[in-house]
Amino acid sequence: MSSFIIHGDVFYTPEKDRSVSRADSYLVVADGRIEGCFDSIPDKYSSLSLLECGGKLVIPALYDLHVHASQYQFRGLWMDEELLSWLNNHTFPEEAKYKDTEYAEKAYEIFTRDLYTSATGRACIFATIHRSATLLLCGMLEKLSMPCFVGKVNMDRNSPDMLVEDTDESINETLAYVDEVKRRFTYVKPIITPRFLPSCSDRLSRSLAAIALREELPVQSHLSENLSEIEWVASLSPDSENYADAYRRLGLLGSRKTIMAHCVHSFGREEELLKNSNVYIAHCPDSNTNLSSGIMPVRYFLDNGYKTGLGSDVAGGVSLSIFRAVTDAVRCSKLYYRLVDSSFRALSFNEAFYMATKLGGSFFGRLGSFEEGYEADVVVLDDSSISSAVQDLSVAERVERYAYLESSKPVVHKIVGGKILF
Amino acid sequence: MSSFIIHGDVFYTPEKDRSVSRADSYLVVADGRIEGCFDSIPDKYSSLSLLECGGKLVIPALYDLHVHASQYQFRGLWMDEELLSWLNNHTFPEEAKYKDTEYAEKAYEIFTRDLYTSATGRACIFATIHRSATLLLCGMLEKLSMPCFVGKVNMDRNSPDMLVEDTDESINETLAYVDEVKRRFTYVKPIITPRFLPSCSDRLSRSLAAIALREELPVQSHLSENLSEIEWVASLSPDSENYADAYRRLGLLGSRKTIMAHCVHSFGREEELLKNSNVYIAHCPDSNTNLSSGIMPVRYFLDNGYKTGLGSDVAGGVSLSIFRAVTDAVRCSKLYYRLVDSSFRALSFNEAFYMATKLGGSFFGRLGSFEEGYEADVVVLDDSSISSAVQDLSVAERVERYAYLESSKPVVHKIVGGKILF
Repeated sequence: MSSFIIHGDVFYTPEKDRSVSRADSYLVVADGRIEGCFDSIPDKYSSLSLLECGGKLVIPALYDLHVHASQYQFRGLWMDEELLSWLNNHTFPEEAKYKDTEYAEKAYEIFTRDLYTSATGRACIFATIHRSATLLLCGMLEKLSMPCFVGKVNMDRNSPDMLVEDTDESINETLAYVDEVKRRFTYVKPIITPRFLPSCSDRLSRSLAAIALREELPVQSHLSENLSEIEWVASLSPDSENYADAYRRLGLLGSRKTIMAHCVHSFGREEELLKNSNVYIAHCPDSNTNLSSGIMPVRYFLDNGYKTGLGSDVAGGVSLSIFRAVTDAVRCSKLYYRLVDSSFRALSFNEAFYMATKLGGSFFGRLGSFEEGYEADVVVLDDSSISSAVQDLSVAERVERYAYLESSKPVVHKIVGGKILF
Repeated sequence: MSSFIIHGDVFYTPEKDRSVSRADSYLVVADGRIEGCFDSIPDKYSSLSLLECGGKLVIPALYDLHVHASQYQFRGLWMDEELLSWLNNHTFPEEAKYKDTEYAEKAYEIFTRDLYTSATGRACIFATIHRSATLLLCGMLEKLSMPCFVGKVNMDRNSPDMLVEDTDESINETLAYVDEVKRRFTYVKPIITPRFLPSCSDRLSRSLAAIALREELPVQSHLSENLSEIEWVASLSPDSENYADAYRRLGLLGSRKTIMAHCVHSFGREEELLKNSNVYIAHCPDSNTNLSSGIMPVRYFLDNGYKTGLGSDVAGGVSLSIFRAVTDAVRCSKLYYRLVDSSFRALSFNEAFYMATKLGGSFFGRLGSFEEGYEADVVVLDDSSISSAVQDLSVAERVERYAYLESSKPVVHKIVGGKILF
């Protein structure tokens, strides 16, 4: 069923400074696309079936531009360390376990189930270097009709032995992975995923860039997350002007649609290179806080037309919830304003919600809003469990409150690409 | 029943840099006090009844040094504003509703129920200026055997008309309130609660200080939360050297046991005045973030022997959970380290947990640890709902993970002052 009507309290953000709130209204979806939102059901849609969600919140699904499925099992653990020691002591040993497909199956089932019931409509996912395990993850998402980009990670240097691939093997495994995903799956798509510059040799990076071009695939990686990491890249790529330039020279920045996670320290250093219509920034505020990376100055990027979406970055971030990323983006922007630069006004809730929906959603297609013609990715939320004596809240206020208080609660209904998943 | 044994996975932090983890052990409580933690039940305790919590986490209850019961109804709302406009636009109009005891009853029942099921053992609570409503709150907490300090708030200037008391009326209502709480309640105690310096005339402040001395009561207020507030205080108290000094001159800082909430901007300004064994700092990281107040440099205060506990500060903070305050204290300390002063090392989880338990607990008595002779405030947590393929976690790791992921989940059992509440 891809034509139907949802009755409820509708909220969406067509612009960063503007929201539409329509209590007690009817959102019409025809052939998987939004027709409009109406006070009553127009005659021409009267034959469509009705999903009755009266009193519930009906909003666009949220988009996660950066999440490590292979780190979900240790979310909320070992948060007393910074990026590079955290990677070596915890992340790499855990990721090495995914060589064992039995472990991977058990772990990815937990991840997939929680992603499925969350408000996230689509996600860009890092798996591990292991092709078999990554294909298992793809298969689980496909079975649930979750349209995600999933990357087999590439690493051929500067990593523990158990996670270092031979360069040719890394290239061949990637080709085989891409081929199999394209062949077997409809909802799940491959994405080229060099872990980050320090873990990929120049030859591997150039080969991956060539594969992305030839196979018409997007690219995802990490950029300027941590100061020690940036120094390391400078020593690894001495001819590059900066970290972003190092990716650019290797063909990995913007030749294809590209997500760069973090960009905490890009402002004042390399921001011009990110002003490319193919480049998306995945802002991951909880992770950047937990790993003592810093605060990304979102205000600059948002106001200057950069494509800035949100990422959970589990397990640097503790939660899969993009609602949590929304409120953390607001929180971090307030601290940046207060502690770093008071000319950078804090994000409003509306702006952060817009990043999580329409702005992040544009990576995947015409998504993230309820304007006419948008593809229907919708979630329905039940906020009735929030007890309060305060009455007469607007729909927008209820959405804000839900984001702050119920970020991890499973949603009631989820519609992706016009298909009602549940 | 105040003598019993709890079997489970025990964790506590006798020092800021040291924890005790004892899986599968027996915590013995005799006459309401901790006897010790044992691998098996010693013979001399074999007649005590056993609370079987095998596989569950057994930890000291947490302490909330600063919470506004009257703001709980609008938690998670209107987070786009700073302190002074937030007070005027939202907080004061909402607090004015508590003149109506019917509204107060409905609202405080929601607050009390959620506090009761949380991991918080004891709290220092702001109500409103209204004596009748505040007594209703006290009655509800008393009925639940929750040993809290509850303050009728005092405000006789610089506030909206509906919340400005006549000075004599404010004094007399406070006296009547203190008298009635002392007379009627055992678990609930009164605390003198001038809202903050701008809302109390000098005469009112001095009278409240005198009442605290005569009635042997503690005091709670707000200090140096926001830069505009600090400027305002400077203009209201031109003879004082700083905000803390203004309280001190009025007799409201440390003559009696005193909690000052926030102290975000006290470092470098007035910190010496807070080094008084009667003064507790309530660090409220989520509120300080949400209201763009800044980050309190906890590292300085903790390492230099200041009594620094944690507060939820609902509704500047969105959640009653002190687990949330623990992880937010860690998070904010990381951003302070990264953005303000890299000589201030980030808090460890252990340190923040210690603040939430033994350090904050010392305000109420010999509490917050499982060392011998400590009064038994205990909560039991079920972390079995956290699905993970990672096995063999230590008890300490499980507590950290619970704090990050399940901060708002109701606890399984709660013991306060040796009494099993549930």
